[in-house]
Order: sequence, then structure tokens, then C-alpha cells
Amino acid sequence: MTRRNIFYAQSGGVTAVINASACGVIETARSYPECFGKIYAGRNGIVGALTENLIDTGLESDASIAALRHTPGGAFGSCRYKLKSMDENRTQFERLMSVFKAHDIGYFFYNGGGDSADTCLKVARLADSLDFPIQAIHVPKTIDNDLPLTDCCPGFGSVAKYIAIATREASFDVASMCATSTQIFVLEVMGRHAGWIAAAGGLAADDRHDLPIVILFPEIPFDSAAFLARVSEKVAQYGYCSVVVSEGVKLPDGRFLADAGTRDVFGHAQLGGVAPMIAALIKDKLGYKHHWAVADYLQRAGRHIASATDVEHAYAVGRAAVELALEGRNAVMPTIVRTASSPYQWGLGSAVLEEVANVEKKMPRDFISVDGFGITPVCRAYLQPLIQGEDYPPFVQGLPDYVRLKNVAVTKKLPVFEL
Amino acid sequence: MTRRNIFYAQSGGVTAVINASACGVIETARSYPECFGKIYAGRNGIVGALTENLIDTGLESDASIAALRHTPGGAFGSCRYKLKSMDENRTQFERLMSVFKAHDIGYFFYNGGGDSADTCLKVARLADSLDFPIQAIHVPKTIDNDLPLTDCCPGFGSVAKYIAIATREASFDVASMCATSTQIFVLEVMGRHAGWIAAAGGLAADDRHDLPIVILFPEIPFDSAAFLARVSEKVAQYGYCSVVVSEGVKLPDGRFLADAGTRDVFGHAQLGGVAPMIAALIKDKLGYKHHWAVADYLQRAGRHIASATDVEHAYAVGRAAVELALEGRNAVMPTIVRTASSPYQWGLGSAVLEEVANVEKKMPRDFISVDGFGITPVCRAYLQPLIQGEDYPPFVQGLPDYVRLKNVAVTKKLPVFEL
Repeated sequence: MTRRNIFYAQSGGVTAVINASACGVIETARSYPECFGKIYAGRNGIVGALTENLIDTGLESDASIAALRHTPGGAFGSCRYKLKSMDENRTQFERLMSVFKAHDIGYFFYNGGGDSADTCLKVARLADSLDFPIQAIHVPKTIDNDLPLTDCCPGFGSVAKYIAIATREASFDVASMCATSTQIFVLEVMGRHAGWIAAAGGLAADDRHDLPIVILFPEIPFDSAAFLARVSEKVAQYGYCSVVVSEGVKLPDGRFLADAGTRDVFGHAQLGGVAPMIAALIKDKLGYKHHWAVADYLQRAGRHIASATDVEHAYAVGRAAVELALEGRNAVMPTIVRTASSPYQWGLGSAVLEEVANVEKKMPRDFISVDGFGITPVCRAYLQPLIQGEDYPPFVQGLPDYVRLKNVAVTKKLPVFEL
Repeated sequence: MTRRNIFYAQSGGVTAVINASACGVIETARSYPECFGKIYAGRNGIVGALTENLIDTGLESDASIAALRHTPGGAFGSCRYKLKSMDENRTQFERLMSVFKAHDIGYFFYNGGGDSADTCLKVARLADSLDFPIQAIHVPKTIDNDLPLTDCCPGFGSVAKYIAIATREASFDVASMCATSTQIFVLEVMGRHAGWIAAAGGLAADDRHDLPIVILFPEIPFDSAAFLARVSEKVAQYGYCSVVVSEGVKLPDGRFLADAGTRDVFGHAQLGGVAPMIAALIKDKLGYKHHWAVADYLQRAGRHIASATDVEHAYAVGRAAVELALEGRNAVMPTIVRTASSPYQWGLGSAVLEEVANVEKKMPRDFISVDGFGITPVCRAYLQPLIQGEDYPPFVQGLPDYVRLKNVAVTKKLPVFEL
């Protein structure tokens, strides 16, 4: 059997656990030396393939590869670079094939979200049409949790845990201050089109922690009057209220609230951020003193408090991708399959990329409470297992000790290619 | 010996570990039943004393009091309410004394920062002038780390750890994205007048983690040209840059960069929103794509990743406050005394409140690098021990399990008092 080489790349926004998938791919591939040749990674995702910037992961120690499991970010660099359609830019795809041929790539593992699944599918189809044997396997990753056919997406569970913890902790803070000072805390979270991350804020309250939380979902058009009434009710009952607002919350006309164009007290255009906008609205209409936070990268890089379940999922889909390759599969993606919620049980499955690419899974309406500002028991039952367990990284001198790989370049064989 | 009662209250912005001090006070006082009577807490700080809203902590189980050690926020409620000077409002102080007399308070433990130390001192002086025997002991607490005469302030170490971790993790994220997308990450941190918290961002980089970090301190007047030049250099060298900006960064004329014109009840400028301003400046002048975060309450409520050293300090000053009371001391504050930095060794001391109240300890200039944008080795040596150790709270269902006390009210004996 010819031992052909592997190409692995990371794509799109990185997560606290995308490197755990890289670890799963590389450790599993290393355990089949009779099947695979070199294990290359793309420097900065697919851009690394186009520009022939390959990294030889074989030069990294087993310890460094193992440490990827607890290191956030994308160890080989990621990219926001969407390949055009084959009709628009066939040159790009032909270049990809040239690089893969030059380096004898037989396996293409692409670790990303919906756009990346589409890229992966195009690579599979082109290889097929060119009669160039390459197996393209998509490794799912997105904090947005919006891929279809998988119960959840690696990366999401850790963000959900981060946001649930942040909401609980900040609620304890504002509860302490509300008698004479801050009554409202607003937390802005990611999720431009799907409210999965915002929903996780709802987990902060449970039967042991009675906390007033109002959530603004991108799926529910923003109704200012209803929102203010709900906040006002919570303050009347509890003395304070926490608001979790998705960056993607929209006006009834479909525009993002954050793009609505407000101005600060000096008349300058608002510099971005829906949290300060919501906080100012509450202050203006209800008079409550407020604080606001924008978690931004902290939520998706927060490896120090990653969900152990999420880390296991991330590693497992990396391992499963290699196993699917060994089974001869092409244009597929390993999936997480839930078999029970309580106690949580899960396994792995697979989905064909035709059914994954460019499909966006939003929150079902029955996951959102009737009033549109909270989560339902069915949503809680879905989310709860995904944040289970703490997978603490090792700490050195009070800080998490994360690995930086050597990332040694593979010698180029082809002419320069301009992106 | 007459067993007189204790009054304990929390003041000002709460922290991840102020309840650990409460735990230290209550557990220690409980261990001397022959010396102390009831242990009362003020509901919402000093406001609870003025309005005779006392809480009987004797009705809380030992397990609940022990759980305060790992619970963020202020368990009895805090307040932002500064007593006027005795000349301005003698009625308030006389009311305090009436409440203390009515409930036979012999010990006043006030857990707060500089303003609270001043209140504590006033209580001590008034009791003395009225010949009413009460021992007033200040329990230090402030994330700002700006109290004099103590090596550090309980609450600071955990914020420092939080900010150092957040800066490291976000830097790993932006490093992954910079080839085709985000090159700048800006994190706004607390600290109105002193740059201690901003300095902690500098710990994110060390000899094992070479990360480009530029810090904006409140102690260094903002020099836009020098700042942009430094960011530009870092991007040229690393491809990206993380900026840690204090909410209190000032223009050369002394105005806060982010002063939005609102003020808190103490008359301090209410800040927030300098991160988007700095991010926009960089985008405008250098063209780099950016992300920004405002940590706000998340940093001071982040008990899930509290510094074990800080938790020990917080508990110890609570315990020491009770021991000082047993020694007959009055108008004092327990202090943290550093005897060695590496390995870290510390003990407890005490300071008289005349020398503590209303004094603000800023960063020494030699803690900030010559260019004004980083920390020096001496600053690192100071900060490093304060973030040591992880004191993880217990987790239930994937989230930290924090205690809510019963907070049962003590029967009132006096007429209503209007604040």
C-alpha cells in the first residue's frame, strides 16, 4: 500500500478546542504509520495550501502534539478566506490540486464551520472530476453551533460554559450592588445568526441559583417595549437584572441592532457593540444604573474553563475523521450523535457533505420561551450535557501553560502563486 | 466578661474574594463563643446599619458560611454610600451609634477600600468621643490594589490572574487569525486611577509565551503617536498585537479618554468604553482589522479562576481582623506583609487607619517600562506571587455552585431612619 500524505488545515474563527481536534487527527494518524505518510498542516488554513506554505507536523514532539489538546486558538494559523465557486475561479482549485499532487496529498482534513464544509466538498468534487484520488473529510468546528446533522458542534460547549459561568458570576456581583448602585448588567455574546450562545446565558439560573436573566436572541425581532417591560418586572421582583444580548439581535425590519447607527453623548457615531446600546436604552427609558461587558474573543479563547465534554467531542471528531479516511470515505463529516440526555450518552456518526455545506441550524422556536426572552426546559435539557466537566489546562506560575509549535516549513516545489 | 455583638459589613465594588474575608471573620468569631455574642451583618453595607437592617449570620449553617470562601459578590449586599463628614451630617453618625447601642455592638468590621477605611476611622473616632466603647477594624478589600501600607489588597490577585489569562488566551486567538483577518485585540480593564490591573496584562507574556502586548496605564498620559508607533512595530514583528487598556487612561490634560460625562454616587467619573475608542483609532490610523472586549464585572466576579493566594489573603485578613479585636485594637486594618518574593512568603501585620484612609497607592514609575507601554522585571516580581494557585470552586452540572445565604433579618428596635 502506498503511504500517501495528509493535509490538515484550520479555518474560520478559532475556538478553545479546535486544537483538540488537530490533536485527535495527528495522534490518530501517527498511530497508523503503515497507512499514512507525512502529516502536513496548512499555515493559515487553506491559504497555506494555495501558497504552498505547508508545515511538517512530524517535527513536533509527541508532548507538543498532546499539549494541543489543552491549547486555545489555531496552532497552525487559521484564515478567513472563502474559495470562490469553481466557475468563478477555477485557477484556485487547480492550484490546490497542483500543491496536493506535488506533495502527494491523499487526505484533505478541513477543520471548520459551514463555509469550510463547502470548500471541503468542492475539493472532493474537483479531485473526483480530475480523477485525482484524494479523500476530503470535514472536521466540524464552530462556536456558533449552527452545523446541521450533528447534535452539536465542537467549540460550542466551551463557549456555552464560559457564558453561563460569566452570567452567573456577574449576576452575583450586580445582586450585591443593586441597593445603592448598579441594577442592570448587560453581557454581549457572539452568534451573529443563531442564538445558541445567548441561550447558554440562561443556564446561569437553575433550581439552586434563582437569578433574573433576560435574553435577546437573533431569532426574535427586537421589541423594545416588551423588552423594557420584562427588565422592569425583573428589577421590581429581584432588585436587579442581567441581560444577555446576542451580537446578532435584529430590528423587526431585519437590520442588526448594532448597525442601527446610534451616537454617543458627544454626537460621535457609536463605535460598535450592542451591549452599550442596550444598556443606554435601559438607562434612558427606565433610569437604572448599569454596567456592560463585551466578551468577544475571551469567550471563544477561554480554554482555562473549557467544557470537558466539548474537549472530548473535539478530540473525537479529529480521531473519527482519520478513521473515516481509513474506511475509504470521501466528502463526509464525522458527527456527534446524542443517544441520551440524562445521563448524557453520545457516540459518533457521519454525514455526507452535500447535506452539510451551507445549511445553517438555528435555534428551534420551542427552545425559546413564549415571551422570547428565555430558554425552555427542552433547551436546557439539550444544553446541559454540553457544558459538563472541567478540563483544566496545566498551570505554570499562576497561568495556563499553552504550547507554541515549531511550525517548520516544508520545502516548496512549485512556483509562487498570488492569492 | 460581657459578650458584646459583632457588626460586619461589605462596602464598595465587590470582588471574587470579599466573601472569603466574610468567611474569615465569621468562622473566627464563631470559634470564640466565650468572647463574642451575636455576629450580625449589615444588609447592603453601611446602609444596613443606618436603616437598622441587620442580618443574623448565626442562622446560617457552618456549611453555608464555609461556602462563602468560594462564592463571588457580596453575600450580604454591598453599597456605594459614602458617609458625609461628621460636620456635614452628624445625624448619620449619631444614628449609627444608636443602632450599635440598641444591638449592643462592640465590634465594627468594615470590609472595603479607601473610602470605607475613612468611614471606619470616623466610626472609631465618634465612638471614642461619645465614650461608647466600640472597636472599629477595617478589613481591606479592593481590586484596585491602591490601599497603602499593605503589600497588596485582597481582591486584586484574582483580577490580575483573570486579566493575565484573558490576555494570554485572546492573544493566542488573534495570533491565529492575523494572516487574513483580525490583527489587533483590545481589552479594556478596570482601574480608574492606578494601573495595577492593566499591568497584570503584561504577565500574559513570559519566557515560555512570547506575545506582543502593549499596555495603556492611567499613570502615563496618552500619547497617540507613540502608542500607534509601538502597535505598528509589534504588528510588523509578530503580525498582530494585543492592547490592554485601563478604563482610567487619561489625555495629557488630565481628562479621562473615555469620560462619557456620567458620574457615580461618589462623584467619580463613570467610565467604560475606551476599548472601542482605541480600536477605532488604530483602525483609522493604521488600518488594522480589530476586535475588542470590555471585561467589566466579569473580571472582578470571576471566582471560577480565583488566585489561591488571593483567597488565602482574603480569608486571613478576615481572621486577623477578629484577632486584632481580641487584642483590644481599635481603628486599625490588618495588612499583608511580604517577606520574600521568590519563593513567595508572607505574613500579617497591621496599620493604623489614620495612615490608610484616603491615601491612594499608584504604580511606582519603575514598575512601568521606560516607553510607558509595558511592565518591568521588578513589577513582574511583585505581581507574580499574587496570581499563584488555582482555587477552583465546586462545580455542579457544569457550573460553579455558589451559596445564597438565608439572610434573616434581626428584629428592629428603633424608629425608621430616612437616608
